[in-house]
Amino acid sequence: MKRFPFPPPSLSPFLVILLLAACQPAETPSSEAATAAASFPNGEIIDLSYAFDAETIYWPTAAGFVLNEDAKGIQPGGYYYEANSFSSAEHGGTHLDAPIHFFENRWTADAIPLDRLMGPAIVVDVAEQAAGNPDYQVSVADFERWESAHGTMPDGVIVLVRTGYGQFWPDRERYMGTAERGPDAVAKLHFPGLHPDAARWLVENRSIHALGLDTPSIDYGQSTLFETHQILFEANIPAFENVAHLDRLPPQGFTVIALPMKIKDGSGGPLRIVAIIPATADGRG
Amino acid sequence: MKRFPFPPPSLSPFLVILLLAACQPAETPSSEAATAAASFPNGEIIDLSYAFDAETIYWPTAAGFVLNEDAKGIQPGGYYYEANSFSSAEHGGTHLDAPIHFFENRWTADAIPLDRLMGPAIVVDVAEQAAGNPDYQVSVADFERWESAHGTMPDGVIVLVRTGYGQFWPDRERYMGTAERGPDAVAKLHFPGLHPDAARWLVENRSIHALGLDTPSIDYGQSTLFETHQILFEANIPAFENVAHLDRLPPQGFTVIALPMKIKDGSGGPLRIVAIIPATADGRG
Repeated sequence: MKRFPFPPPSLSPFLVILLLAACQPAETPSSEAATAAASFPNGEIIDLSYAFDAETIYWPTAAGFVLNEDAKGIQPGGYYYEANSFSSAEHGGTHLDAPIHFFENRWTADAIPLDRLMGPAIVVDVAEQAAGNPDYQVSVADFERWESAHGTMPDGVIVLVRTGYGQFWPDRERYMGTAERGPDAVAKLHFPGLHPDAARWLVENRSIHALGLDTPSIDYGQSTLFETHQILFEANIPAFENVAHLDRLPPQGFTVIALPMKIKDGSGGPLRIVAIIPATADGRG
Repeated sequence: MKRFPFPPPSLSPFLVILLLAACQPAETPSSEAATAAASFPNGEIIDLSYAFDAETIYWPTAAGFVLNEDAKGIQPGGYYYEANSFSSAEHGGTHLDAPIHFFENRWTADAIPLDRLMGPAIVVDVAEQAAGNPDYQVSVADFERWESAHGTMPDGVIVLVRTGYGQFWPDRERYMGTAERGPDAVAKLHFPGLHPDAARWLVENRSIHALGLDTPSIDYGQSTLFETHQILFEANIPAFENVAHLDRLPPQGFTVIALPMKIKDGSGGPLRIVAIIPATADGRG
């Protein structure tokens, strides 16, 4: 991977490309475009997605992930071959919540513009506050604390909230409060989420592209009205749930790419979400 | 999508100074990282994925995509809610073939390193050759023709082959030769693919990261031994099938990001694949 020195922060993205190109030996005629493409992804790629298997955590009322082996082994033609089929609820494992999941006439999974799902991201870390309190709800003060350390959240940012509960995956009891299944288990759910006041603050005061966290739901486990879902989704802000490995990210200065399975008219679905940390990121910016 | 102004025909003295300054060693690491993250994706994003619905094309022997509506409407709590579950074969619609699909002890879907799935890409266009000949097999000469126009394929590139058959999606008869289903339909498949000699040439002479195309299979429809699969997959080169909208891409100078559903031990699965064309790409490089 080629590494480039970076230009000052006030330059436009176009100039970034131009400057990167200018620092390169002129080897090919298609200089700028080829250089820009060839320099991606120039950093550490971190997979923020859990794999789907029989252990993958779903909502207590949902059927889990089932993989059916359709073929495996040497075929009559003499070649090796394997293939599977599978079934899944949309909302299990590392997944997208499309806004229509909790608000009528908002974006379905296939309709979310791709530029809402990839771009600069931040991590708001509330692991200390949520430790030992699975009913913790992320507050406006938590966001204000992040901003006093790192500056106002930029427009279009993807906000990732780290509660620390990702460390318990895939232990259902520790991760979400209960390992029971079925409708009666829902009342026993305990895990941190985002307080509706904090969701409202984001909608009214900031212009974020998406919100993700390391628990099963953006509303905390004891929620019954899912108000945080309603507030964000009315504003067409998609959510990412059961996001993995947020402990490996700096508070800012990295990119997230979150590409959901393109389910026509889906309310959500399996999500492959990755972070790219530029070689020079140190999170103190 | 934001568009950025193209540069003036001649650079101003100010820009020259700026360009020279940009080539100096970096002094403020954190702000640079933030800038790099903030500048992504600085170009046009093109979705190369078909949506999954009842029309999505699968292999004639595979069950298609099925979406089950689990909830939809106003709930007793007074809020709107909808959610679905679904079932699918791994190998239908726009999807990944993991190398283990046709070669034992090669990468499963969840094990492919992410840096093989995102990076610089090219389009080898054989639409003219394949027009009217659904049994067309992409040849070594096709790759050599691309290289004589654009230079040797760079190491680590993602190769996309455009046969032009994407224009027929989702008309099964025109896209793949038959709309019939079941085992007897397989012999009636006619669509272009990659000749095993061309696959072998890529493996032996180039160092590509992945290969995708706009038909149901990297082997042509009349293949019975799937040798192109075997050759590429032995070399751990993943494939992307039923890739959409390749007509919207230049021959080179763009980036592909192909993130598959992370199915543990999967032989493939639903793929969300996108291209990013830098604002300055002209494809003539």
